[in-house]
Amino acid sequence: MTPSPRTALPQDVAGYALRLGDDALILGQRLCAWVTNAPTVEEDLALANIALDLIGHARTLLSCSGQLDGSGRGEDDLAYRRTERQFRNCLLVEHPNGDFAVTIARQLAYTLYARRRYAELALSPDAALAAFGARAVKEVEYHHMHAAQWTVRLGRGTDESHRRMQAGLERIWPYTAELFEDDELTARLAADGTVTAPSLLREPWEQEVAAVLADGGLSVPAPTWQATGGRSGLHSEAFGPLVAEMQSVHRQYPGGTW
Amino acid sequence: MTPSPRTALPQDVAGYALRLGDDALILGQRLCAWVTNAPTVEEDLALANIALDLIGHARTLLSCSGQLDGSGRGEDDLAYRRTERQFRNCLLVEHPNGDFAVTIARQLAYTLYARRRYAELALSPDAALAAFGARAVKEVEYHHMHAAQWTVRLGRGTDESHRRMQAGLERIWPYTAELFEDDELTARLAADGTVTAPSLLREPWEQEVAAVLADGGLSVPAPTWQATGGRSGLHSEAFGPLVAEMQSVHRQYPGGTW
Repeated sequence: MTPSPRTALPQDVAGYALRLGDDALILGQRLCAWVTNAPTVEEDLALANIALDLIGHARTLLSCSGQLDGSGRGEDDLAYRRTERQFRNCLLVEHPNGDFAVTIARQLAYTLYARRRYAELALSPDAALAAFGARAVKEVEYHHMHAAQWTVRLGRGTDESHRRMQAGLERIWPYTAELFEDDELTARLAADGTVTAPSLLREPWEQEVAAVLADGGLSVPAPTWQATGGRSGLHSEAFGPLVAEMQSVHRQYPGGTW
Repeated sequence: MTPSPRTALPQDVAGYALRLGDDALILGQRLCAWVTNAPTVEEDLALANIALDLIGHARTLLSCSGQLDGSGRGEDDLAYRRTERQFRNCLLVEHPNGDFAVTIARQLAYTLYARRRYAELALSPDAALAAFGARAVKEVEYHHMHAAQWTVRLGRGTDESHRRMQAGLERIWPYTAELFEDDELTARLAADGTVTAPSLLREPWEQEVAAVLADGGLSVPAPTWQATGGRSGLHSEAFGPLVAEMQSVHRQYPGGTW
């Protein structure tokens, strides 16, 4: 009988922080594209603020990952000098913005997951993850309100807004399963209690989602195909242009600072 | 009275070759995005072939420009190491692909212009421009057939294809005026006969366009606003992501060869 390890390997924590950091980075990048394009100026600012919070989370998580993995890479190295296949974000966050309702559906799915994930991280025996989780869970609270309120408002609005909100949910839903996939890395981290297995977050997430959708008179999309691949670096077609654009300034001016 | 110069300054020829080279490069890049997305496999190959021809034109023109401007920059330097504002292509060629009819409208407008421009370059006293023009005008002949035949086919097809072809023309037309703008550079080059002034190409272009559209039962779009700026480096919002993606591999692996 192999005794279970008492503390997680630094590489494992680094690998998990990279996944969460990439999720926040890529979603932040996607949301930035709404700036000057949101339905109202107030909404422009709201999405920009959420994007900034996400990029803040990414900075902390990527720095932590670079310190723990022994590579000496900083947050900028990880954000701007990796290639597509080296990113570990889930496919949900790289999904194109679509119309406003698609973006809100993506926000709802991601934020309800991140909120629960961060609350749970705050309890981790790993001090760095716990400190991050305790801070981030508070910031995500506003993202949660924002996504839930818009979902309900669009769901209860006009026939057209209802139709588009439901269509946004249908479009996004195949990408939600990946958030709750367990694999070897999460199994090792779960074995010693560093993080809860992703699959255990699924049921409470589904209940929260269902409550918001019911409030907006919307239906939970029926089970369908499920996308996967992001956690092992296999991304969608839309990811290449996103990375190219995100990295373009750094690639043009390597090592530039201001 | 200032005597008119007998031969164009190398910098002027370089500047003009850069404009035409950038037109071909950027349109080639746009067309590449149709690969795996065209309506049929045959059309996939047709658009890829046209894109390859255009990139070939760009290579010749950018090499020529780099030699003449005294900077010693090669085609790769010019294609991959300039920033957005340093490109001199017209806004027409950077216009997003849209649906297939928008792409065909853009092809029709550009190709009828390029065909006439290249035929006229073949007569230039500048040996490099003349050699390029004589070769390129033959290749563009196929692009011309392709664009004209699709325009007519969509125009005479179903109600839906007709509607979309007309909508594509309306979308693209504001970007055609820039092709025929004269400015200081073209005035100097026209003064000694190196190239014909762009404005002189407009009328025959309009006649050719009108003939194709009449054949397809389509209307020439009514005069409306006219976009400008590309020739002085002021590009549209869609241009940044295009350049970022086009340059991403070179920026990741500076100086890489295979």
